[in-house]
Parts: sequence; structure tokens; C-alpha cells
Amino acid sequence: MELNDRQHKIIEIVKKQAPITGEQIAEHLNVTRATLRPDLSILTMSGFLEARPRVGYFYTGRTSETIVYEEIMKMQVKQFQSTPVVIPESASAYKAVCEMFVEDVGSLFVVDEHGLLSGVLSRKDLLRAAIGSQDMNQVPVSVIMSRMPNIAYCKQKDTVLDVALLLIKKEVDAVPVVQERGNGFEVIGRMTKTNITKAFVSFAHGKNPEKS
Amino acid sequence: MELNDRQHKIIEIVKKQAPITGEQIAEHLNVTRATLRPDLSILTMSGFLEARPRVGYFYTGRTSETIVYEEIMKMQVKQFQSTPVVIPESASAYKAVCEMFVEDVGSLFVVDEHGLLSGVLSRKDLLRAAIGSQDMNQVPVSVIMSRMPNIAYCKQKDTVLDVALLLIKKEVDAVPVVQERGNGFEVIGRMTKTNITKAFVSFAHGKNPEKS
Repeated sequence: MELNDRQHKIIEIVKKQAPITGEQIAEHLNVTRATLRPDLSILTMSGFLEARPRVGYFYTGRTSETIVYEEIMKMQVKQFQSTPVVIPESASAYKAVCEMFVEDVGSLFVVDEHGLLSGVLSRKDLLRAAIGSQDMNQVPVSVIMSRMPNIAYCKQKDTVLDVALLLIKKEVDAVPVVQERGNGFEVIGRMTKTNITKAFVSFAHGKNPEKS
Repeated sequence: MELNDRQHKIIEIVKKQAPITGEQIAEHLNVTRATLRPDLSILTMSGFLEARPRVGYFYTGRTSETIVYEEIMKMQVKQFQSTPVVIPESASAYKAVCEMFVEDVGSLFVVDEHGLLSGVLSRKDLLRAAIGSQDMNQVPVSVIMSRMPNIAYCKQKDTVLDVALLLIKKEVDAVPVVQERGNGFEVIGRMTKTNITKAFVSFAHGKNPEKS
């Protein structure tokens, strides 16, 4: 939304002197209160200013950019997560590769005897093991996995943006979605760069009137 | 931006009867032209309606949703692509795995003797080969790669959204960015789900006034 010069001036005045009445703003600009009425309506309706009866105008700090950001921040893990694939610590690396192909996932989550998260296994971990000299049938996944507490994870109420930042920072393709149980974490979902890509497409299409 | 009931009604009237004058709209709503003035100002300033002098109001089809979509459509491959890693068709699968670890990428692009794209090699392709019975040193990548013309690719002027859709549809993690040369394609970049994730973060932060 494009504001005109006078509207920008009004915002500057309100920023500095809030709360300020319409009459006072009009005085600053050397115009009548009636002249300002449409401008003040536009600024309050579009969320830039807030008008409190008998007090005056306040600056909300909300702009069209902020509003887009707020829309993005509404996208939560629970709307976009996938089903996790878990295997026990004792499973062999060979079994893990098979599981990855059968389930068509890029990451497996390893759980201990209580079913709590103990590690993460990526295609990269398995590829490294596979070209090594070890027999993949003899190596348990617990030897080659990334291990707690050095594992990035997220929760269902986290935002998609939080997870995107985490994946980039930790340089991983996926993180488990967890919830606390006892003194550990139960794995209840999976968030990957594929989920982020899908969230991005869904956000863009939600904003494309031709698709909706 | 939140519109009120009357503003929604005005948009509906203009959609059906454009071009229509302010007086005519006022008549439809049983109010005076003066009453409508702030509403019409808001609707034209925020881009919903266009006012042409001596003609009347038109519906532009632009809404705040459209404006966000237009912003997303401005993000192009050339702003977000990474450097590609290429290997010759004759390289061994073992050499390809080493290259993947050294360069820390999830996909390699395979080129023929003229340096033109002939295949794509993913971690999944290499993992499948690695747990097979073949000797990774003896298998050339040309045997295990996905081969032209069954390869998804993109160009620098494509949008990030186009590529996101392509990665989801083809179920791949990366596509080469190519340009035509002779009767083939030269590889000039790499677009992955990581690049999409970074584009998403960058879009969100570009819209976060606290970060800019």
C-alpha cells in the first residue's frame, strides 16, 4: 500500500508525540481537521495508527511488511510435519539403509529401549559407513548415528520459520518433532527441507488469488 | 489490511458494474457521496480500486494477497542458486562419494566429454550402489546416475517458486541450473531444497521490520 506525503508526515508526528489528537495533528500541518479526516481513516484502517477515544492517536508499528511477517509466523510445525520413521539402537546399518529405501525418507530417528530419542541417522552417515571397510550387517546404528544431546529438534508449536533457521544453522536436512516424556523426548514427527519447501509453496499459493 | 463491511460491499458493486461513479455507488448503498468518501479513498489508496477522472471506479484485482504473491514471484533462481559440482561420466562411484564429502553437497551433476549435462547423481543413488554387491571403484557413475532426458532442470530466470514446485513434483533434492549450449545444456548452478529454505527465511526476514 502506497502512502502519500501527508500520510507519511502524520505517521512521523504521531510517532514522536503520541498520544496526540486529530486537532493537534492538523495544527502541526497547518490544515483543518476536516482535511485530515480521510488520511486518518486510511492510517487507522490500514493498521498504521490506532485511535483511542478521548485520548488520541498512537503509532502501532504495524506496516504492510509487518502484516506479511505475521502471516508467515502463523505457520506452525504441526500443520506441515511428516510422519517420523524410527528404528532401535540395536538395528544394523544395513537394516537402516533398507528402512530408508522402503519408507523413502532421508533421515531415520533412533530410539532407546524406552522408545525415547537417542540419535539421528542421515543418508550421509550411512553413505560414510557404506564406503568404509566395515560390514554394514555388523555395525549397529548406535555407532554411526549423531547422538543426543548433540541433536537439533523442534516442537509442534514452533514456527516453520524457526525450523528453517535451525536446519540452515545446523546444516542438517531433517529434525525430529518431539514432546517431553519422562526425562527424554518422544518422537512425534519429522520436519525436513521438503516440508519447508512445501510450506513455502503453500504460503505462496495461499497468496495467489488465481489458485484459491 | 482489514476492510469493513461497507468497503467489501463497494468492491462487489464495482466488480459487477465498473466503470461506476461515486454517486452511483452511493445510490446503491443508500448513503450520500460524502459518507463514502473515506471508504473510496481507502480502497483506491490500498490498490483495490482505481479511479479514472470523468469515468469512474474500476476493480483492479489487486489485493493485499496479490501484492504478497507478486513479491514472492520476484525471487529468481539467479539470486539464490549455489555453485554446482560436476564430475565426468567416467568417474567411479567411489570417486563420486569422495567428491560429495569433500564438497559437502547432496547431488553431483555428471557431464559428457563436451562438458554438457548428461546425468544427476544423488546420495540415494550412491547409497543404493554402495550396499549392492558391486565394487564402487569399478562402477562408473554413468551406470548409476539418472540420465538425460529424464532430468529436471531450471534456468536462472525461473522463479524460486517454480523450482520449489519442480523439486516437490519430481521428488528430488536438487536440480541443475542450466543454459543452452550447442544441442545440450551447460551446468551453471545448483538449486536445492536448502536454497529454497534459505529463500523462505530471506523472504520472511525481508518482511520483518525488526531485522531490516
